[in-house]
Amino acid sequence: MLRIIVLLPLLFALSNASVQDFCVANLKRAETPAGYPCIRPIHVKAKDFVFSGLGTPGNTTNIINAAVTPGFAAQFPGLNGQGLSTARLDLAPKGVIPMHTHPGASEVLFTLKPGQVMVFPQGLLHFQINAGKSAAAAFVTFSSASPGLQILDFALFANSLPTELVSATTFLDPTIVKKLKGVLGGTG
Amino acid sequence: MLRIIVLLPLLFALSNASVQDFCVANLKRAETPAGYPCIRPIHVKAKDFVFSGLGTPGNTTNIINAAVTPGFAAQFPGLNGQGLSTARLDLAPKGVIPMHTHPGASEVLFTLKPGQVMVFPQGLLHFQINAGKSAAAAFVTFSSASPGLQILDFALFANSLPTELVSATTFLDPTIVKKLKGVLGGTG
Amino acid sequence: MLRIIVLLPLLFALSNASVQDFCVANLKRAETPAGYPCIRPIHVKAKDFVFSGLGTPGNTTNIINAAVTPGFAAQFPGLNGQGLSTARLDLAPKGVIPMHTHPGASEVLFTLKPGQVMVFPQGLLHFQINAGKSAAAAFVTFSSASPGLQILDFALFANSLPTELVSATTFLDPTIVKKLKGVLGGTG
Amino acid sequence: MLRIIVLLPLLFALSNASVQDFCVANLKRAETPAGYPCIRPIHVKAKDFVFSGLGTPGNTTNIINAAVTPGFAAQFPGLNGQGLSTARLDLAPKGVIPMHTHPGASEVLFTLKPGQVMVFPQGLLHFQINAGKSAAAAFVTFSSASPGLQILDFALFANSLPTELVSATTFLDPTIVKKLKGVLGGTG
Amino acid sequence: MLRIIVLLPLLFALSNASVQDFCVANLKRAETPAGYPCIRPIHVKAKDFVFSGLGTPGNTTNIINAAVTPGFAAQFPGLNGQGLSTARLDLAPKGVIPMHTHPGASEVLFTLKPGQVMVFPQGLLHFQINAGKSAAAAFVTFSSASPGLQILDFALFANSLPTELVSATTFLDPTIVKKLKGVLGGTG
Amino acid sequence: MLRIIVLLPLLFALSNASVQDFCVANLKRAETPAGYPCIRPIHVKAKDFVFSGLGTPGNTTNIINAAVTPGFAAQFPGLNGQGLSTARLDLAPKGVIPMHTHPGASEVLFTLKPGQVMVFPQGLLHFQINAGKSAAAAFVTFSSASPGLQILDFALFANSLPTELVSATTFLDPTIVKKLKGVLGGTG
Repeated sequence: MLRIIVLLPLLFALSNASVQDFCVANLKRAETPAGYPCIRPIHVKAKDFVFSGLGTPGNTTNIINAAVTPGFAAQFPGLNGQGLSTARLDLAPKGVIPMHTHPGASEVLFTLKPGQVMVFPQGLLHFQINAGKSAAAAFVTFSSASPGLQILDFALFANSLPTELVSATTFLDPTIVKKLKGVLGGTG
Repeated sequence: MLRIIVLLPLLFALSNASVQDFCVANLKRAETPAGYPCIRPIHVKAKDFVFSGLGTPGNTTNIINAAVTPGFAAQFPGLNGQGLSTARLDLAPKGVIPMHTHPGASEVLFTLKPGQVMVFPQGLLHFQINAGKSAAAAFVTFSSASPGLQILDFALFANSLPTELVSATTFLDPTIVKKLKGVLGGTG
Repeated sequence: MLRIIVLLPLLFALSNASVQDFCVANLKRAETPAGYPCIRPIHVKAKDFVFSGLGTPGNTTNIINAAVTPGFAAQFPGLNGQGLSTARLDLAPKGVIPMHTHPGASEVLFTLKPGQVMVFPQGLLHFQINAGKSAAAAFVTFSSASPGLQILDFALFANSLPTELVSATTFLDPTIVKKLKGVLGGTG
Repeated sequence: MLRIIVLLPLLFALSNASVQDFCVANLKRAETPAGYPCIRPIHVKAKDFVFSGLGTPGNTTNIINAAVTPGFAAQFPGLNGQGLSTARLDLAPKGVIPMHTHPGASEVLFTLKPGQVMVFPQGLLHFQINAGKSAAAAFVTFSSASPGLQILDFALFANSLPTELVSATTFLDPTIVKKLKGVLGGTG
Repeated sequence: MLRIIVLLPLLFALSNASVQDFCVANLKRAETPAGYPCIRPIHVKAKDFVFSGLGTPGNTTNIINAAVTPGFAAQFPGLNGQGLSTARLDLAPKGVIPMHTHPGASEVLFTLKPGQVMVFPQGLLHFQINAGKSAAAAFVTFSSASPGLQILDFALFANSLPTELVSATTFLDPTIVKKLKGVLGGTG
Repeated sequence: MLRIIVLLPLLFALSNASVQDFCVANLKRAETPAGYPCIRPIHVKAKDFVFSGLGTPGNTTNIINAAVTPGFAAQFPGLNGQGLSTARLDLAPKGVIPMHTHPGASEVLFTLKPGQVMVFPQGLLHFQINAGKSAAAAFVTFSSASPGLQILDFALFANSLPTELVSATTFLDPTIVKKLKGVLGGTG
């Protein structure tokens, strides 16, 4: 059993020095381009720097047989302003995280065996698919507390753009576009 | 078995647009404050974005019964300029990653069970210790391709500063300072 | 006729102060994550800050009836390190800049009439299409000297990924994937 | 006629992932060093990313026979946090945008004919003057949503600094300083 | 006597251009990762850019015979968003600023005689000690408006971590740990 | 007498971890937008982090009765990549540092008595003048290792721009422009 501890600088509560060493998100306040406003240092607790939400597999009973569980600033306030965020991927057999990009961050993915690591440069299309016979999981980290997520098919088809416009700009046959708009709840 | 693929923009090799989407490190060239110079896009291969060095446990037969295996830009060139790096921690029973800081990055640590995640804000002292009966491993990510590592005891004692100076500035008894200088190969 | 002049600080050549006010790219040197190395200040000329390459319409006689003429750091060395770059779009009637993203930058687009401006946040999919009867042009600026360009169809189909993999991760019928791989020179 | 569309990631409204892909300014809230706080994603509309304010020539009936129409975050909220802003310059014959700097950004200027582009490195003095017989216009982009604007004569003379102090630090004769203070409403 | 003046761009109050050239901190509002929200430009006064708090020696009648007087954004609102902050160090004879780091900034220290300057890279341990017979002072600047301060002994001992845990991770004898916990008000 | 020491992480020389904690400039290599390339860690010496060049007053026997002694990355290689630089100002009686800006950095100025500190936001015009009867000195720090320096009169008059162009864009009488071009070695 690992014991892992960070020493929070108690001194800060006593001094009137600024405490930007950390800026635990106040999720009740509006975000800024640099993240959420900070809660007061005196309200910061060690548990603000721990997140257990990635311990439970996501529900993969869905159209893609897969789930993404985010551990972003919105779920893990201690990440706010730290330039990092996390997520858990769960894929049932044949599960797939469809083609997507993270507009705001690069990504590092750990595959638990054989301990391989991959990096996905910011904004580049990538996907994960479970070609095996058993469920698989992976953990990822992003280079921003707010990496964003743009799933290609949602962006292309879950909208109200005229079919011929999507068709003309993707070279996909209108019938295909219409079909996928139907599957994903798009119109037009 | 997961299949995970990133689509490298082939177009870039054809155009003369810049390719800062990625900047695979040329480790033969001197670093800059922003990282290593890039290898030419035409020389980039998909495997540059994959690193297997974290698949093998580090050798924990040492004074701390623990090992840190870095996956920084220097080992994993695809990380260069991506604002991320990785490492593997191995701790034998009683193993310890001694009190340390990462001057250049915040850190996220995954404990494989129960899937808990911790964040260590940049520059704050922290440690990991294996209080269990079996070997333990953890994977970490940093918010920089070059997080740095400052192990407290190495910084304090593996140097040639006069003992009384270290003692006066740490409030540690000179006998203790001398003893640890001896253990860690310091002088003075 | 507009006369527009920037006063380059002559003083710099005389002092030994650093000259990072500008860093005209030395295109013969390898890029870094922050851009190209700078040419020596004494070699900098006013014309390094002017680029005429966007004055000529691009050749739209091609599959998309459109052209993108980049004015990035690689074409316009004075942009190096300035956090900006430019491009010209030309679209013949029915021309289209297909669905694409800029992984490394946000974009501002000027439509010359009626003087409307649009912003495309970094990494988000967008396109331009000429629905009119005459040729159209537009000028864009990016928030990076190296915005990158990922054209969706090139990324998806101009590669050697197995058709079923692309199909499974995009929900496009294998026949469509094969057809577009054919059009765009992909294999698999 | 160009049709130009950005696909806003609808998914974001459904997920609780952060939406820093864009951060449309809430102009009712105080700015931060990184920009304005964001409005809620569910309140974001496509039109927030379009700005038509540069379509109308500015009023050049003034002392400089020229006008600057800003398209900054304060006028074009979709620019907030995107690292870009825009402006339109209008110059009647003999019109001049007097010597000035942008303390917070580099600038790219498009001269509509012959499609020439210029870059003005951050903070360097520059000007535009219409040496022709007809009105001229130009569009510019800045590398920050808040480039700032410091017009030399306003800074030097539209203040209450003692004339001899301005004279001593600019080497301009006191009579000239007094005269320009008069023109620009300065005192001292 | 030096007269030193900055010309605040009066124009800004008249235009509706953004005023991020400066962002004087509104200390009544919560900090963000990028600093405090700005007060309104019309409320900015020249004195907001001046701070006299470093003119008075700090009280060195304490356990370390030294004092740190911060001039951070919290004390000197004009620094907000400027990427700089200041402090004054006072050391009585035998005074010491104990071993510490600044997790959020690099530091430059001026020793008033012989005009020597030192740089302390971000996050690296350092200290200052007065080995002379008279009081000494020094002025420092940090590369962030919020450099933070982590004093080693406070972090290690002014906490409630079990003594054996601190001992195991620092290689300090438990008796020493207990003693310093006592001195610094720690428990466990 | 102050003893001030930074503990350089010896460990780095032993490990193959990157050492971006510091990046001592290799002045023989071309700069990049992020600074100079780094010398090898094994070649770094403690003295690289110390600079004595500000200990000697600059020569004020000149047209402005003042001197600026830079301590930028080019003079003080340890500053490279640290986001800080320094300078010393010397002003004889009546001496003046003429109206100028630092396009690349904000500035903090220490006036040695009465310990007052001032901040000059990036790019804003400012000056220093010695209104006293004795020589004065001041030390400044900038928020960049390469702050740049644009002295107004040099930029306006030490160039070959036609006099009428400078006159038209500054509202200064042509006779004044010609006179100052003469003083400062300009032509046109």
